[in-house]
Amino acid sequence: MSHPAYLEEFLTFLRFQSVSTDPSYQDQVQKCAHWLQQWLQDAGLDSSLHPTEGHPVVMARGPFKPGRKTVLIYGHYDVQPPDPLDLWDSPPFDPTIKNGIITARGSADNKGQIFSHLLGLRETLQKAGDLPLNVIVMIEGEEEIGSKHLEKFLIENKSSLACDAIIVSDTMMVGPGEPSLTYAMRGIVAVEFTVQGPVRDLHSGLFGGIVANPLKIISQLISSLYLPNKRIAVEGFYEGVQPPKSWELEEWKTLPLNESYYQNLTGTPKMDAQGTELLERLWLLPTLELNGVYGGYQGPGSKTVIPSEAHAKITCRLVPGQNPEKIGEAIERHLRKHAPETVKLTLKRGHGGDAYALDPDSAMAQAAVKAMKEAFPGSHGYRVRDGATIPILSTFKKILGADSLLVGLALPDAKIHSPNETFPVSHLELGMKLNQTLLKKIQAS
Amino acid sequence: MSHPAYLEEFLTFLRFQSVSTDPSYQDQVQKCAHWLQQWLQDAGLDSSLHPTEGHPVVMARGPFKPGRKTVLIYGHYDVQPPDPLDLWDSPPFDPTIKNGIITARGSADNKGQIFSHLLGLRETLQKAGDLPLNVIVMIEGEEEIGSKHLEKFLIENKSSLACDAIIVSDTMMVGPGEPSLTYAMRGIVAVEFTVQGPVRDLHSGLFGGIVANPLKIISQLISSLYLPNKRIAVEGFYEGVQPPKSWELEEWKTLPLNESYYQNLTGTPKMDAQGTELLERLWLLPTLELNGVYGGYQGPGSKTVIPSEAHAKITCRLVPGQNPEKIGEAIERHLRKHAPETVKLTLKRGHGGDAYALDPDSAMAQAAVKAMKEAFPGSHGYRVRDGATIPILSTFKKILGADSLLVGLALPDAKIHSPNETFPVSHLELGMKLNQTLLKKIQAS
Repeated sequence: MSHPAYLEEFLTFLRFQSVSTDPSYQDQVQKCAHWLQQWLQDAGLDSSLHPTEGHPVVMARGPFKPGRKTVLIYGHYDVQPPDPLDLWDSPPFDPTIKNGIITARGSADNKGQIFSHLLGLRETLQKAGDLPLNVIVMIEGEEEIGSKHLEKFLIENKSSLACDAIIVSDTMMVGPGEPSLTYAMRGIVAVEFTVQGPVRDLHSGLFGGIVANPLKIISQLISSLYLPNKRIAVEGFYEGVQPPKSWELEEWKTLPLNESYYQNLTGTPKMDAQGTELLERLWLLPTLELNGVYGGYQGPGSKTVIPSEAHAKITCRLVPGQNPEKIGEAIERHLRKHAPETVKLTLKRGHGGDAYALDPDSAMAQAAVKAMKEAFPGSHGYRVRDGATIPILSTFKKILGADSLLVGLALPDAKIHSPNETFPVSHLELGMKLNQTLLKKIQAS
Repeated sequence: MSHPAYLEEFLTFLRFQSVSTDPSYQDQVQKCAHWLQQWLQDAGLDSSLHPTEGHPVVMARGPFKPGRKTVLIYGHYDVQPPDPLDLWDSPPFDPTIKNGIITARGSADNKGQIFSHLLGLRETLQKAGDLPLNVIVMIEGEEEIGSKHLEKFLIENKSSLACDAIIVSDTMMVGPGEPSLTYAMRGIVAVEFTVQGPVRDLHSGLFGGIVANPLKIISQLISSLYLPNKRIAVEGFYEGVQPPKSWELEEWKTLPLNESYYQNLTGTPKMDAQGTELLERLWLLPTLELNGVYGGYQGPGSKTVIPSEAHAKITCRLVPGQNPEKIGEAIERHLRKHAPETVKLTLKRGHGGDAYALDPDSAMAQAAVKAMKEAFPGSHGYRVRDGATIPILSTFKKILGADSLLVGLALPDAKIHSPNETFPVSHLELGMKLNQTLLKKIQAS
């Protein structure tokens, strides 16, 4: 079966195993960056490759003319590791197409979304020999590992990166045919802790009853973090949190994001929130989630030990107005206060990232909504928040002074970061069209 | 360096990698049983090897004469797996002797303890051509895997195994030079459970706040099992539990088993029990211990998932008068009652085993105490309980109708089931002497 040329190019992009976190993929990451830079050059842009202390940043510029606006289109060419491999229905780096759906690691996050913008730029340049405004393309290779070296790059190249707005397609659509403008995202802070009891695993018969079991203590510490009313018990945890605005509550009623929608997506026996509480908890309230808890014997059957240690990994999603550093401290304070003398508590702070918010009524935001409605006829131009985190957005704002327009092109069931990640073939064309409409609307705004 | 002949024989016994749980050691288990049978034959006993559906039972009999008592000496030649291998200071099956201490897997549990009895029998036979009473030796190869096929063997050989008492050395001494008669041991019941939330791991940003996190729920379920006063919250958990008798409380005061003793052995920051509460909680109260809890990400750094599942493994130590089956049901009932609708709870019952108790004032018990004091001059003849479990003891009682005399020869820091398991060379001779004294005292009782 032969595909249109642009689809073949996209499949080539997907075949690079550009896993940024694992050094054994180093060569593939490099090759992917080189291929991308050459593609951009061939597309009529002025491209370049910028080494960092980590993976390189791929840059490209359209024709620059004074007197018109400048946008920066941001994306990433690195992907999450494909593990667990045995849960994939097809090899993660050998893309397959079935019923118009592409399955491959990175297809949605972020190769498909960024590539549709690049296709849009190329087509415009081929047809018109110019773009509606000045365009900077910046595609990094470390988004999946916290954009470690991008802040330094932004600072060093601040003047050449000056722009009026940043376009990011790395979020979700509300549903098929319904793109959305995401005007706020949550922040993040990570805390992990270890509870140590006896110096080695003990025989549960010879010592059971007189030694505090670290697994019991860690369960009690974890439970102490939660109140019966679904709130977090940590003092100061809700400082800076704002209730939803009345227009948001109104707009939520029009969204198809209800209980059964999330029930279908997640397959949980019963959702933990109902009605308007659902989106409030997802978008406007901070969370304290356990990502991992472990200690003792995990094999088949039983092993009668009191384990020496127990471990827990927590990440919190924070909302605009909250400080990751302060929340991290508050959690550590809570744990120290609640840990009994029978164990030793060790705390370790992980990465943090600020939440992001854009004024959804700004001229830029309005331009984005108009563009979405034009590019996707019949769509509602929904404005939504997002529960996830893109820490670089607040860095953009801080260093470049520009707001980000988040126009997602992935479907809610894209299985981002999971096995069998997907992206519809049709979204490449839709994304091209959105890119072309969006650039015009921004220039006109 | 050359050792006495009996020590060389013991080292040969230790070199067999008789790990019963792992089929890859099958050949070593067989070889060990054969070697042991031949040794017993050479020692002047009438020995035989009895195949079971699992590992064989090694049997031997001394001269049988009517009109005198019969004892059954029970032990096991199988050992725990040596893992984790990297924590051993010397190879687990290549015994080393340093400062009179033998380090090897199985040295204390149970090869050293049972072998000292066998050495005692051989010496008596060599000197006197007879034993003070009729002796049956039964050494099984499946104690570390729950004596799976021994009950059937006992039933099938009930008449030839008829005896007045059973001697078991598979417990601890109170300290160096202080053997003890263990007159009660705890029972056991195992329960494991799984909490399932979403059908797959979810992105903690995209779904955090609206889905019940299985790790949070399992922590809350675990916490619900415990009351603030250190008691277990499960209804009916203390049914059948008896308080210590006043003579026991008196005798406890004379024992060197205090807080600092256990503190040294375990290295916990602070013991979870003080004063007489210590031995009461260790010996007379049931426990509910977590042996393993796990779910989500366990690698370095963080992975922002809400895991699909969380798992917990529990074993309870039960006391005489309690029924493992009933306690297992009570725990399952408690968990079902406390599990919220937002998750699916799956329960699995593991193995169970009855507690054991002997009348510490019986003639047999008194004979054992006298023998210990005579064999270990200056010792106190302590009578103690033990927090661990030997389920076969209640099976002996049920099928053979005989009580077990538990006279331990291992030191408290023997590291049974752990790396660097030890047994003092001197305990072989002490055990020989105890065997010889004990048989005489039992015959005289």
